Amino acid sequence: MIYLDANATTPLLPEVLDSMLPWLREGFHNPNASYRGAKAARQAIDTAREQVAALIGAQPDEIVFTSGGTESTNAALKWLARLVGRKTGKAITTAIEHSAVLKPCETFSDVGYPLARCGVNALGRLDLDDFRAACEAAKDGGGFASVMWANNETGVIQPIAEACTIAKENGLAFHSDAIQAVGKIPVNVREVPVDFLSLSAHKFHGPKGVGALYIRSGCRFEPLLRGGGQEKDRRSGTENTAAIVGLGKAAELAAGRNMEAVRELRDAFESIVLREVSGSEANGDPAHRLPNTSLLSFEQCEAAGLLILLDDLGVACSSGSACMTGKQQPSHVQKAMGFSDTKAKSSLRFGLSVLNTRAEMETAAAALKKSVEKLRRVQGFGVGPVTVYTP
Amino acid sequence: MIYLDANATTPLLPEVLDSMLPWLREGFHNPNASYRGAKAARQAIDTAREQVAALIGAQPDEIVFTSGGTESTNAALKWLARLVGRKTGKAITTAIEHSAVLKPCETFSDVGYPLARCGVNALGRLDLDDFRAACEAAKDGGGFASVMWANNETGVIQPIAEACTIAKENGLAFHSDAIQAVGKIPVNVREVPVDFLSLSAHKFHGPKGVGALYIRSGCRFEPLLRGGGQEKDRRSGTENTAAIVGLGKAAELAAGRNMEAVRELRDAFESIVLREVSGSEANGDPAHRLPNTSLLSFEQCEAAGLLILLDDLGVACSSGSACMTGKQQPSHVQKAMGFSDTKAKSSLRFGLSVLNTRAEMETAAAALKKSVEKLRRVQGFGVGPVTVYTP
Repeated sequence: MIYLDANATTPLLPEVLDSMLPWLREGFHNPNASYRGAKAARQAIDTAREQVAALIGAQPDEIVFTSGGTESTNAALKWLARLVGRKTGKAITTAIEHSAVLKPCETFSDVGYPLARCGVNALGRLDLDDFRAACEAAKDGGGFASVMWANNETGVIQPIAEACTIAKENGLAFHSDAIQAVGKIPVNVREVPVDFLSLSAHKFHGPKGVGALYIRSGCRFEPLLRGGGQEKDRRSGTENTAAIVGLGKAAELAAGRNMEAVRELRDAFESIVLREVSGSEANGDPAHRLPNTSLLSFEQCEAAGLLILLDDLGVACSSGSACMTGKQQPSHVQKAMGFSDTKAKSSLRFGLSVLNTRAEMETAAAALKKSVEKLRRVQGFGVGPVTVYTP
Repeated sequence: MIYLDANATTPLLPEVLDSMLPWLREGFHNPNASYRGAKAARQAIDTAREQVAALIGAQPDEIVFTSGGTESTNAALKWLARLVGRKTGKAITTAIEHSAVLKPCETFSDVGYPLARCGVNALGRLDLDDFRAACEAAKDGGGFASVMWANNETGVIQPIAEACTIAKENGLAFHSDAIQAVGKIPVNVREVPVDFLSLSAHKFHGPKGVGALYIRSGCRFEPLLRGGGQEKDRRSGTENTAAIVGLGKAAELAAGRNMEAVRELRDAFESIVLREVSGSEANGDPAHRLPNTSLLSFEQCEAAGLLILLDDLGVACSSGSACMTGKQQPSHVQKAMGFSDTKAKSSLRFGLSVLNTRAEMETAAAALKKSVEKLRRVQGFGVGPVTVYTP
């Protein structure tokens, strides 16, 4: 299997799994207890906190471990909505956020909160004029903005520094969903002074079920999960030592990683496909794109059918976000970029990682060419639309 | 190390870790994707859902996987508070709940929700008259009740069937924190028709970072975590396949487990201690107690000092809940049972599991005798109170 769905999830690196195993075996103690083994678990968590902080330029105390990206975004946004207050506050986000941001924001809207979803240009990048106008409109009543650092479907890196500045100039709190960016490109909370930032381990070779919420020192925060008061009362629940250690190790490895080799592989793959497959197109702002992501569309070719053919040929990729698999609507991200429904249903996302090789990319490009041609042939014979597998 | 803190957490059984490892290695795929590997992960999650459902007499569809017990209780209670409405609704719970229930309930109280914390008798069992009165007072305005199945500090099994019946007779929704009960005693949602029930894997030899919320079929529910719509939109976030599989395996193993051997070990340990250590006392209703838990108190002996001495002798136990370690207040559970502050600060909790042996219990009892005598001697010389280690 050639795995090209790294924006959905990534395999654990062997070093990461190795770092976790002792805490799944003899190091099982509850880190809140007072005996020796518990203190060792506590120290391992402290080390992981330093590793995650170092990756994003934070102080260790600013890192709160969570169960993953979705919990991080929900915790930040629900708190911001409560803090700002529904009477006057406004929620500002973008039309291309992940559903883990959009869905909570829609619930605020349901209870009367004004919600602005700012648009993007045809290349998938936030329209800063639109964003500025929304922030200025929120200036008097207060509010918060949430802008993703990089998009999960297109890989487009957003103008996050500019957006953060605009939000701050208008007195708004600022959260960034950096789940797809962290571990792939430099993300530094000293350079871009976000108030809150969400990240997830399994997007950069750490384990599933763990993430972090960065909370800028001095920012008020009340927790989503209350109980035993772990994480300095910012996130209750027995600490998942093994997963936290794995996140720390993955952060340490990501900090020293050069993604240029991945970018070269991605670029080589794209150029083969664009050259060899007629009616193919690469999408997303080429000047601001994650080094690992390629969103390709294929004229007269349904992505649903391509996924099946590629799976048969041993290539794993996706159409849009994995979280949306099985849903028949065209991607809201691609729609926001102005894609027609037909084009949005003809796009495949390839997510590479440091584990991919040149040979894999060549094989995948050949499989893609074969699949597109086969599907066009079959569709040409009037077999009708291919139905997607719904898990 | 003799590990006697199984109510804080338990080690993974080797079979549980073995069941998880494939999903930490080659089975890493996002279960929401459409290719082969992803389908295998989806099937593994379905199997785990059946295993957890079987353990508590539920239907698989009634099981929602979460990041652990604290998330489960917070999700259930916050939803119930929203559903019932703050204008007329009442929240009814007990004075001995875990903080993962009490703390969310206190936030409802902070925003104007009437909150009743029903008392317990001197043996730590819910006062059903008090509970009935609270439920009847809530009958007209609506509300919900949350009663733990078994207490984490005393091991006392609550009159859960009676409490559930009383709540239902008064039209109240009913949640039970069964985190300490599941895997140790029979818990069956057909026999006790709770609406919501929380459980956690790491309390019965499953992994940390995963739990479940049982939601009775037909009960309305809106999620705490919103996003990709996983778990049939009841809990978003990429599924933690390995942890969920581990929970399933732990549930399967627990379903076939006979805890009578553990009860015998616990009883033998208690009888040695009560016989050998002067001024020692076993607490909690002897007729309604988890088979694995022993809450012992020692006259003129601070638990904080005992924990240090026992750690030196290789025995791990705790004073009250691990989540409360480092906090200097006497346990709210023991205070609710009428313990004096002094007695509450002189109590140790021993939590046994199937991994303990008779020889361990004899060694632990001897270590306990030695520690109590040493501490009384030292304290007798006027060295003053021993300070507790604060992690």
